[in-house]
Amino acid sequence: MSDALLSATQDPQLRPFLPLVYVAWADGELDDEELVALRERLAAQPWVSPGARAALVMWLDPERPPSPSALQAALAAVKQAASTVDPATARSIADLGAAMVDGDPELAERTRAALAEIEEALGLALRAEAVAGAQDAVVRAPALDLAALQRLLDGPHAAARAEVRAFLAEPGHRASFGISTAEQRALCHGWLRELARRGFGDEAFPGVTTRAPDVGAFVAKFETLAFGDLSLLIKFGVQFGLFGGSILHLGSEAHRELLVDVASLRLVGCFAMSETGHGSNVADIETTARYDEATGEFVIHTPRESARKDWIGGAATYARMATVFAQLEVAGERHGVHAFLVNIRDESGATLAGVRAADSGHKMGLNGVDNGRLWFDHVRVPRSAMLDRFARVTADGKYESEIPSPARRFFTMLGTLVAGRVSIASAAVSVAKVGLTVAIRYAAVRRQFGAEGAPETTILDYPAHQRRLLPALATTYALHFAIAALQARYVAGGEDTREVEAMAAGLKSYASWHATRTLQDCRECCGGQGYLSINRIAVLKDDADVFTTFEGDNTVLMQLVAKGLLTAFKQQFAGARFTGMLRHVARRAATVMLEKNPIVTRLTDADHLRDGEFHAAAFRYREERLLQTVAQRMRKRLSAGIDGQRAATEVQEHLLALAQAHVERVVFEAFAAGVLACADEGLRGWLGRLCDLFALSRLAADMAWFVEDGYVESWKARAIRREVEQLSAEVRTAAVELVDGFGIPDACLAAPIAFGEALT
Amino acid sequence: MSDALLSATQDPQLRPFLPLVYVAWADGELDDEELVALRERLAAQPWVSPGARAALVMWLDPERPPSPSALQAALAAVKQAASTVDPATARSIADLGAAMVDGDPELAERTRAALAEIEEALGLALRAEAVAGAQDAVVRAPALDLAALQRLLDGPHAAARAEVRAFLAEPGHRASFGISTAEQRALCHGWLRELARRGFGDEAFPGVTTRAPDVGAFVAKFETLAFGDLSLLIKFGVQFGLFGGSILHLGSEAHRELLVDVASLRLVGCFAMSETGHGSNVADIETTARYDEATGEFVIHTPRESARKDWIGGAATYARMATVFAQLEVAGERHGVHAFLVNIRDESGATLAGVRAADSGHKMGLNGVDNGRLWFDHVRVPRSAMLDRFARVTADGKYESEIPSPARRFFTMLGTLVAGRVSIASAAVSVAKVGLTVAIRYAAVRRQFGAEGAPETTILDYPAHQRRLLPALATTYALHFAIAALQARYVAGGEDTREVEAMAAGLKSYASWHATRTLQDCRECCGGQGYLSINRIAVLKDDADVFTTFEGDNTVLMQLVAKGLLTAFKQQFAGARFTGMLRHVARRAATVMLEKNPIVTRLTDADHLRDGEFHAAAFRYREERLLQTVAQRMRKRLSAGIDGQRAATEVQEHLLALAQAHVERVVFEAFAAGVLACADEGLRGWLGRLCDLFALSRLAADMAWFVEDGYVESWKARAIRREVEQLSAEVRTAAVELVDGFGIPDACLAAPIAFGEALT
Repeated sequence: MSDALLSATQDPQLRPFLPLVYVAWADGELDDEELVALRERLAAQPWVSPGARAALVMWLDPERPPSPSALQAALAAVKQAASTVDPATARSIADLGAAMVDGDPELAERTRAALAEIEEALGLALRAEAVAGAQDAVVRAPALDLAALQRLLDGPHAAARAEVRAFLAEPGHRASFGISTAEQRALCHGWLRELARRGFGDEAFPGVTTRAPDVGAFVAKFETLAFGDLSLLIKFGVQFGLFGGSILHLGSEAHRELLVDVASLRLVGCFAMSETGHGSNVADIETTARYDEATGEFVIHTPRESARKDWIGGAATYARMATVFAQLEVAGERHGVHAFLVNIRDESGATLAGVRAADSGHKMGLNGVDNGRLWFDHVRVPRSAMLDRFARVTADGKYESEIPSPARRFFTMLGTLVAGRVSIASAAVSVAKVGLTVAIRYAAVRRQFGAEGAPETTILDYPAHQRRLLPALATTYALHFAIAALQARYVAGGEDTREVEAMAAGLKSYASWHATRTLQDCRECCGGQGYLSINRIAVLKDDADVFTTFEGDNTVLMQLVAKGLLTAFKQQFAGARFTGMLRHVARRAATVMLEKNPIVTRLTDADHLRDGEFHAAAFRYREERLLQTVAQRMRKRLSAGIDGQRAATEVQEHLLALAQAHVERVVFEAFAAGVLACADEGLRGWLGRLCDLFALSRLAADMAWFVEDGYVESWKARAIRREVEQLSAEVRTAAVELVDGFGIPDACLAAPIAFGEALT
Repeated sequence: MSDALLSATQDPQLRPFLPLVYVAWADGELDDEELVALRERLAAQPWVSPGARAALVMWLDPERPPSPSALQAALAAVKQAASTVDPATARSIADLGAAMVDGDPELAERTRAALAEIEEALGLALRAEAVAGAQDAVVRAPALDLAALQRLLDGPHAAARAEVRAFLAEPGHRASFGISTAEQRALCHGWLRELARRGFGDEAFPGVTTRAPDVGAFVAKFETLAFGDLSLLIKFGVQFGLFGGSILHLGSEAHRELLVDVASLRLVGCFAMSETGHGSNVADIETTARYDEATGEFVIHTPRESARKDWIGGAATYARMATVFAQLEVAGERHGVHAFLVNIRDESGATLAGVRAADSGHKMGLNGVDNGRLWFDHVRVPRSAMLDRFARVTADGKYESEIPSPARRFFTMLGTLVAGRVSIASAAVSVAKVGLTVAIRYAAVRRQFGAEGAPETTILDYPAHQRRLLPALATTYALHFAIAALQARYVAGGEDTREVEAMAAGLKSYASWHATRTLQDCRECCGGQGYLSINRIAVLKDDADVFTTFEGDNTVLMQLVAKGLLTAFKQQFAGARFTGMLRHVARRAATVMLEKNPIVTRLTDADHLRDGEFHAAAFRYREERLLQTVAQRMRKRLSAGIDGQRAATEVQEHLLALAQAHVERVVFEAFAAGVLACADEGLRGWLGRLCDLFALSRLAADMAWFVEDGYVESWKARAIRREVEQLSAEVRTAAVELVDGFGIPDACLAAPIAFGEALT
């Protein structure tokens, strides 16, 4: 057998099969069943001569593997052939095989076609590079233009970001850990004062404290601040975003005068929405604001223990005023949740009469934020204390609002939260960037285990380590672009508020879950070093962990996203009868069947797997299919007389899957658009690789769904996993540059292990 | 159509189809394609009369859904029929349909067979209960015998556990948080002294400090201590397990005299193995122990910064003596890693000459443990300081050992770590138990959202909440039994040390990853309450997080497990030629094809899905298949001349998948055996449900693999997911009892939210 294989390197009809035979044995990816299937396919080619056929049958006998030297000889022949063809075009076994046909173009073409068919049918996504010595010459990181990369990522507010970077880099502004809660709070509050002194608060209130509308710069600053201490970030967000934002968005002109003091921090405030009994379900909060017509005052009251305000940042110590959300009662009638400005402390910090405050207690992280509880015992505030932009009570006790629907009014009041969600989504991505920068820099220098006698292996070269860090890096890049797009839409304002709200809710959830998972992986990937607070990952993990449940619990928000999609779907057919919808679904199903055609479901070559059109189609397909099935399930339940709430609960898992699919599609499209828009060709190549890695790793993560659905066949699923490994290996070569491009100040990384200083 | 359906309730040939028609529409799980497929199958039944056939075609027209009232009438008829049959036997649509055939046994049987075939073919795992009003009468938690459950879980060392529970319940022994590192360390050290005073250390050293061999009781105490403060647990483990254990296992008689002082804490020690440069790769540590023949002493030395001992529990402050692992050099020759007892501090706590110690720094958790660094500058210790049970140096400088192979000697020295891994695996499960107890108790009383006007819904009744907590509860139970079996084998000793070592490594990894993921989910499931330290989950998460990377990094340990399996596989064929192995593989493949027969791959009825034989076969199949393919891949790489280390790195992902599949199979079998051995019938029913839930949820988690492989078809995959939901809903009814059975002292739960006291 060995001799036969050796001599085949000279046989013109057999030579083209050498790459395939080599791959079948040497790569070791084929099991016996596959070997046999391959043999049968080859032997069935009508144009192969009987002699060559016999040789192929022999070479692919699972019981008679070739000797190492015969394989080496085959490899040498393949490499020689590969050296004569353009590596950019010869990416498949078929191409290589065709190149090994000497001087007979027709035979070359026939060979290529036959090999391509076999390759595809068997899911042999083993590319020519691997055969032709790719291991000798892996993709090398080009001299990535780091400055260009950072410019691209910084986007339109580079100056604002630079200001924050400068602040974070200054001595004394390093993230805190291991100090007492009291010290940490004082430290963070000092930093906040310093930021206010530098005018950071002014940009939050365009047209009030500044002339130019600088919301974009404000959001960029928030996002960049998230490289540093997260307690400071949250305090910054509470003061300028939530408290100041509630005055800006819900108040009228008179209230806005306060904003100058809010911006300067002369007036420290808090945002008292959540209650112990009601976190997610804001509509059912229990604090009351009864209008007393006799005195023209509102009476703010905590009727029972579950109605106490809870987790309120600033309430424990620093805040002097609170925006209190309460159920408005006028003349015995309830009008739903409205917001009121209530003084809670005097200048000396003592709570005012009728107000009780307490600390919420020690937390997993963010102990620099003084979260607290508030109780109100019939506290009276003037009529002007109501934030009355959208609704008000007249002096003679009449309730007025331009928004007739109570539900719509409620969501308008909650609009303040959108900015918070855009901000938290942005911060979550920043946090993932810091964690990955520390972990990847460490993994690029840390060595452990290796071949006898040789230096130990760099841990970033282990496939398992790559799998944990590099798809996460790709997702972080993808989210960067998705959130930049969200910020731009939010800042631009305009008519699509509902869409922006849904996108903010979805991206906040997706990004915060991503940050939590990524930091956990980074922590574990750094072993004991990852457990030390000084290396930042652990502290970030603890601080950012609450991102998944505050500013709207992720699970609740994702259901909102899904319900929004269902509503839009239903509106598409408003007026049409249910059967009309079904006919539409049937038409869609026909399109879908096209996408499921057997060629596409089995395509496994790298060109196809790295084709953005394939990714886009797969993400779209999954979302549409889930939307249709969820809509049908809801419809059937509703028509069986089940109420909406229960129907939604029964299909909760499907709603969550739909929301996940939707957000992932949006993220992918934003990243793909970002890649396309990148003018620098070198950068674009790397961003493109990251985009492919994001897309394929996310498809791989949901592969059970795609395979069950029939959108992807088993062979292709395997090829996708291999492509994820291959892409990770490629991205690994530029991984350090790709995290350096985030432009995180050294002082923020703080971590000795990020600087090869694990030993200090 | 509605009328037709209504009148069908009286038609003898149509009546039996009503359950199927009802489910097809009302449940909403079927999409259009499935509806059409169902219609075709029904219409193709030869024994159905043309009229009935036409009716069925009409009823299942996707474009003409029945009216709610028609469906209600159908449901009423089905319920009436269901009320006449034994619910224990009528678990399927087929059974219900058959019951609706009046007085014609032959027709009833034919109907049952036809419906069963259709039900199975379409993956309609929609059981009769759901149709016949299961929602009105969900499985109720029986009065679970909590005392019996706790007895069962406590196993043979109930008295030892009771002692620990009593300690943990005493005032002043509550888990710490939010205090300074110095306070926390002092507090924990005081607790450790108290435990020593009560004789807890004595059991660690059977035959030395006590008469009876009480290793089992010691491990049970460790496991139970993990309900409390984990810093105390780790200090306990370092002093009695690692430091004392190294003397017990590696020392000779003379050394063991020290154990009395170790047990009483008169001698506080530490275990100095890890170095900054070498955590996982212990064989390459750099600290040296050179034998100086002239003085008969060893010279312990830290040759460079990366060789400093790091993360050593006790080294920062309390330890007076260290077991130091170092490369032994005798007369210029290296003999590998050996252990030496080195005094590092005097009675006053001052470091001795030549020894430098420093704090490792603030950590994510476990700050009650004084982890530290140690440097040795040519520190001299007498010849007797070498722990010389397995190897020694004679006075005249000769190296002696009964174990000729250096590799084997090395692994014998590392044997001390096995006890540590058994202990950490046990503790990880305890930690998951505490987290789940808090989260499940809270979820059972916390309400949020709900239908208008009705009380809000208990969050444990949401499917998404169940999915996050209840499969984790099932896995925790499974691990409980697996680890009890491991403890028993470890305590029994005997000949299978290698197997016990592999099992300890695998279960330590699996259990610690499980604990980390579970605590993260518990944290998020409790929202803001989960973020408060007082509710324990967050603190436990931070403390236990390092379990995944210390005592052997999980990723490294899992590769050891896989390599052990490969070695055993190879040994099976020792002597046989490679072709012999391939023939075996071919024979196995034939068996495998049997398991993959189309009936089994499609079976979707609940009896099959809850059949332990099915679970066992699936776990076994996956492990064997992965073992075969990994072996082939390794073999092919090795025969292509690739060295073993690189070959293993190239197939790293597959090795990890194999290890995971192996451990999961072992865990399943231990749980299934535990269920079988349970004498109490009521308990056995609930344990059986948990075992089913564990098995199916783990299969569901790896469904992409099973579907790609062809072991499970799409319909069955869907049915498995539905069964996981159904089992979760059933387990939910007894969830609080099932966590109460862990017997965690109230004081350990500490958490106000575990007692319905979220409001205090």
